[in-house]
Amino acid sequence: MQEITFDQYAPQVLQQLPKGAFLTVSHGGRDNTMTIGWGSLGVIWGKPILSVLVRPSRFTYGLLEASGEFTVSVPLAGMAKALGVCGSKSGRDTDKFTAAGLQKLPGIKLATPVIGGAGLHYECKVVFKQPMNPALLDAGINAASYPSGDHHTIYYGLIEACWLE
Amino acid sequence: MQEITFDQYAPQVLQQLPKGAFLTVSHGGRDNTMTIGWGSLGVIWGKPILSVLVRPSRFTYGLLEASGEFTVSVPLAGMAKALGVCGSKSGRDTDKFTAAGLQKLPGIKLATPVIGGAGLHYECKVVFKQPMNPALLDAGINAASYPSGDHHTIYYGLIEACWLE
Repeated sequence: MQEITFDQYAPQVLQQLPKGAFLTVSHGGRDNTMTIGWGSLGVIWGKPILSVLVRPSRFTYGLLEASGEFTVSVPLAGMAKALGVCGSKSGRDTDKFTAAGLQKLPGIKLATPVIGGAGLHYECKVVFKQPMNPALLDAGINAASYPSGDHHTIYYGLIEACWLE
Repeated sequence: MQEITFDQYAPQVLQQLPKGAFLTVSHGGRDNTMTIGWGSLGVIWGKPILSVLVRPSRFTYGLLEASGEFTVSVPLAGMAKALGVCGSKSGRDTDKFTAAGLQKLPGIKLATPVIGGAGLHYECKVVFKQPMNPALLDAGINAASYPSGDHHTIYYGLIEACWLE
């Protein structure tokens, strides 16, 4: 394990995100992970921030709202099959770790685990969140990304740890 | 001039932001630039997005609301003095380009100029924005960054061009 600065792998994160990364949450003894394709790395309020978007309909949403923390594990190579499983099943009725053959590793700062083998991990504490207001969104994006509503809540996570396996 | 992918200089952007970058807006024949220290680079809605934060009290705010576009020029070396000027004067009563000895260069995609000499430029069209809801912000950050209210509006800019001078 090697701790790195949050920005060191920024190009790799931004290039991998559209191919998928694991967003993992944990609350009350229940863990879940989902595949995300969107996110943002920044400096906001003078702090390193990783932003992710979660729709209220997701099983992840309730756990994240309850725990106030999440991890993002970015595959630095492969894992396409596991990303596919975690992007198509719901944690409501599936243990996705078993279904996708994923290994949980403990976080180094937070209680939420990370996904072993991905290679790059961010551990984040939610410091701000905001449900998207569709009225303020570009009409074309709204039509393309939200044909049935279900707009995301955007979670701003203070990066408490960033590390390579 | 050399166009690059939006993520190529992500570490440099994230490292420079706390030291300052130029956020430039233009509307109705009036240009203004301000120093920003916060921002975020991401992939959202399947698109490259640069997010910036502007307080409603800023002169920049009205121009940005009216134009719906902005540029961010990231100094790859130096420019500390000009960043200081553009972070302390207001465009309401000062032509900051003259005061800071800055040269406007035309954008390659948008009508808003960029700041010559900075080296790295993003041209962005606002596709989403959201005034921050203080009730959803971490209390410590709220106290530290907003002692007098004046919470930011977060602007999500679709990156139409990213280029090196």
